[in-house]
Amino acid sequence: MKARIPEATVARLPRYLRCLTDMAPAKEICSSEDLAAAAGVNSAQVRKDFSYLGAQGTRGVGYDGDELREMIRRALGLTSVHPVVVIGAGNMGTALANYKGFETWGFDIVAVLDVDDERIGTRVDGLIVEPLQNLESVIASRNIEIGILATPPSAAQSVADRLTKAGVNSILNLAPMILQTADDVSVRRVDLSTELGILAFHLQS
Amino acid sequence: MKARIPEATVARLPRYLRCLTDMAPAKEICSSEDLAAAAGVNSAQVRKDFSYLGAQGTRGVGYDGDELREMIRRALGLTSVHPVVVIGAGNMGTALANYKGFETWGFDIVAVLDVDDERIGTRVDGLIVEPLQNLESVIASRNIEIGILATPPSAAQSVADRLTKAGVNSILNLAPMILQTADDVSVRRVDLSTELGILAFHLQS
Repeated sequence: MKARIPEATVARLPRYLRCLTDMAPAKEICSSEDLAAAAGVNSAQVRKDFSYLGAQGTRGVGYDGDELREMIRRALGLTSVHPVVVIGAGNMGTALANYKGFETWGFDIVAVLDVDDERIGTRVDGLIVEPLQNLESVIASRNIEIGILATPPSAAQSVADRLTKAGVNSILNLAPMILQTADDVSVRRVDLSTELGILAFHLQS
Repeated sequence: MKARIPEATVARLPRYLRCLTDMAPAKEICSSEDLAAAAGVNSAQVRKDFSYLGAQGTRGVGYDGDELREMIRRALGLTSVHPVVVIGAGNMGTALANYKGFETWGFDIVAVLDVDDERIGTRVDGLIVEPLQNLESVIASRNIEIGILATPPSAAQSVADRLTKAGVNSILNLAPMILQTADDVSVRRVDLSTELGILAFHLQS
């Protein structure tokens, strides 16, 4: 069933899950209108998205919050723990390692790497920063599934190449540049400048 | 003309601009195929998006890189400088204030605010961290147009309320929660958990 969930729905599912988590446990029953308002889409879209998961709301009442959360978590594969490596222990990498939103979703940051001798050996949220040259052995020994790039832009592509060569095909890129990767690599990119660019457009109107 | 650019195109324009900036000055002529590959969309979409800006490529050759950059910058309103306030001087706020990607796009971080006495008075990228209680006077005296929220989730809504009340209707929210705002407020949200959630989905297949 999972293969049939459209990409655009997949992109919205984490957002619904965030809404449901914010609402709970205050709300046991969530209407598609509540979720639509909270997620910034229309309610028809919400119902359509949930139909791909097989979720059946009660007409005029809504969805069972706990059940829906569980369905989304299963669909996204958030029911197991995913070991994550953060590359770059600057402010961005440190912010990420300290980011409390991750753990409840099953993302476990198990290593923080850097090239800078002044950072290596220091502590970031309970982890000791390790040298980047150990990347391949860290990936293999800790079953890393996801890499988060918080390096300067100039280093991002070469680190991404090493990640994928070592079998990590899921990358969250926070460096302000576009990675070139093979088709079977999933890259999500957070570019803060482009987000501000969209805000700038709306400033004009 | 600006009012006619569809929202989805607006969301892609900063991405094209990033591509054009990464390519330049090596490439004076950019084909829609190059841009499509770099931005992760198809080339028909690229040509359609640019048609809204009035950009005419030369068939079989491409677009003039400089001209296209300028057109996108004009469309997005990046030709003037936008003063920005960052709220929260923790790791995330510090990472943002140090983020070099902003300046070249015309975003000028002119203030960093926090509630924590230990942070107030310290320096972040050349700026002195100021008390959050001064938010309204900072906004008025420095013509702030955009607010970046890097607070804990529990503080984000109340700060957003103060921003909009003081006339800042463009907000980039990095706190992992959904803001409730009036319809005329533009909010862009960067939720790192939801990005990882999308990666988790692809890990399954």
